[in-house]
Amino acid sequence: MKPEHAAQIATVIEAAKARDIKNVYFVACGGSMASLSFGEYFISKETEVPSFVYTANEFIHRNPKGVGENTLVILRSHSGTTPETVAAASFAREKGALTVSISMEAESPLCQAAEHIVHYNYKDGSDAIDGEVGIFYTLIFEVLNVLAPNEKYKRVVAQLPKVGELIEKNIEQFADAANEFGKKNKREKIIYTMASGAYIHHAYSFTSCLLMEMLWIHSNAIHSGEFFHGPFEITDYDVPFLVVKGDGASRPLDERALDFVQKFSDKVEVVDIETLNYGGIDEDLKEYFGPALTGSVLRLYADALAEHTGHPLSVRRYMWKMDY
Amino acid sequence: MKPEHAAQIATVIEAAKARDIKNVYFVACGGSMASLSFGEYFISKETEVPSFVYTANEFIHRNPKGVGENTLVILRSHSGTTPETVAAASFAREKGALTVSISMEAESPLCQAAEHIVHYNYKDGSDAIDGEVGIFYTLIFEVLNVLAPNEKYKRVVAQLPKVGELIEKNIEQFADAANEFGKKNKREKIIYTMASGAYIHHAYSFTSCLLMEMLWIHSNAIHSGEFFHGPFEITDYDVPFLVVKGDGASRPLDERALDFVQKFSDKVEVVDIETLNYGGIDEDLKEYFGPALTGSVLRLYADALAEHTGHPLSVRRYMWKMDY
Repeated sequence: MKPEHAAQIATVIEAAKARDIKNVYFVACGGSMASLSFGEYFISKETEVPSFVYTANEFIHRNPKGVGENTLVILRSHSGTTPETVAAASFAREKGALTVSISMEAESPLCQAAEHIVHYNYKDGSDAIDGEVGIFYTLIFEVLNVLAPNEKYKRVVAQLPKVGELIEKNIEQFADAANEFGKKNKREKIIYTMASGAYIHHAYSFTSCLLMEMLWIHSNAIHSGEFFHGPFEITDYDVPFLVVKGDGASRPLDERALDFVQKFSDKVEVVDIETLNYGGIDEDLKEYFGPALTGSVLRLYADALAEHTGHPLSVRRYMWKMDY
Repeated sequence: MKPEHAAQIATVIEAAKARDIKNVYFVACGGSMASLSFGEYFISKETEVPSFVYTANEFIHRNPKGVGENTLVILRSHSGTTPETVAAASFAREKGALTVSISMEAESPLCQAAEHIVHYNYKDGSDAIDGEVGIFYTLIFEVLNVLAPNEKYKRVVAQLPKVGELIEKNIEQFADAANEFGKKNKREKIIYTMASGAYIHHAYSFTSCLLMEMLWIHSNAIHSGEFFHGPFEITDYDVPFLVVKGDGASRPLDERALDFVQKFSDKVEVVDIETLNYGGIDEDLKEYFGPALTGSVLRLYADALAEHTGHPLSVRRYMWKMDY
């Protein structure tokens, strides 16, 4: 990791240690919110510190009473210009919280609004450890180590530099399956996603940002644990599902939902996280690396839909074209 | 309220007071989870006590570390037989949490699994104060008054007996609009719902249980604050949206999203919570009553779709017909 990134993270960690952090809020919008949610997942699973995820404007308007001087608020926006998230940073800072903005733009409004910044590189040829995955996961596991010190978290941080190579290997490994998915599904007007645990956030991103936003394909990210309590009645032979079969604690939920859709739909795609290449990662740390590796794998499935539908992921009908 | 219900709630409140409640978990599945979420909404907004919502099986498998002896776990299942929720009650109880099950069946497995029960009447001719709305909101506002005592909560409890009459009046008031919605949308294969604040949970129930489960109509409950961060690109002149314009803190989010869909879709239905009949409720308590009155209003919209599509809400293709 480049020294300036390591220094930014170290500064945040020192600031967090200097306060008695009683709760953590992750605040952003859309895909950035989903990415932050992996932090909430591991904090809730492994520490007694309450953590929460809010879409930025709900955070401001609900004004949760738990936010105060002993609160760590982590915000994120790729460009650092998302107005709701910028406003949320100012809002949290005024309430005395320790605020940290994550963005690719160190000079962005979001980074100016928060007390601390954690900047990542984007498409400048840097290694993945200096990109959004490496920087974010390093931050989160350093924060976890403040909240509930554990040698495991230090090992995660030590092994995170392998993430770039692993992303490349997994992209290679899943390329053909993704292409086949794009080919088979190019005429679909609706594709459901399904997952649980940490992976529900990947499903959410895929649904909101890739299918609905970029591909104009109807979707809904269904939690595998909720599937049998309503959504499963929508299943039919011609209803497509993309199921992320996680490698974490809630894998049995995914397995049960998957068994069902495979029985009643002819259009089921599975991305099994256990089959990812985790080469060089300690066995007991795999569950932490799975979410870090899954984003670029799922991206392939969207790329393939774009390729086969002839609808590039960069096309928009409203965004960048008007005020809203 | 019937004495046996009042006594059950009083017992829970005494038990909660006897412990130092440090956090509250709401655990259920599907529509029951969505209903419990109104508790999380008001607790997070108005108290410093951390509260969380989990679908039951995720709760068990993630095994959040925050659950312990100073935890209040509220569970809910209409029939009291939902296996995941029953298992979650036992799980939480084993961890020493104070467990409370809400159900219409006092003898159900869920009620047997938890330490305390709060039973409500269902379709036995009782007034709404002894039904699911009256009992649940009384419990929640009594719990709020334990967590952060406030005379407002006592006034909510005192005024809740009006809820039955108000539900009837609102059903009357919205009947024609709902019927028109059913008529106009009877050929739709997909209908999105949208809301924020407390009402996102109504949107979730409507999407999962009414549209997808009972009507086999594709859907997704979009948070109004998330709409512009992905989902809005799916908007087109022929894409239907049912927007719940809330009366709470996040109403501005709904207004912004609504302005957009009304501009670009010809098929937008609005249920404006501010237009509900709140007769006899104190002005400063309306935001607490809105969520309690909205369920039966939205139900009309599903009833109307059932009527005009000829697809009764009672029809299932999987539930009750097989094991899954």
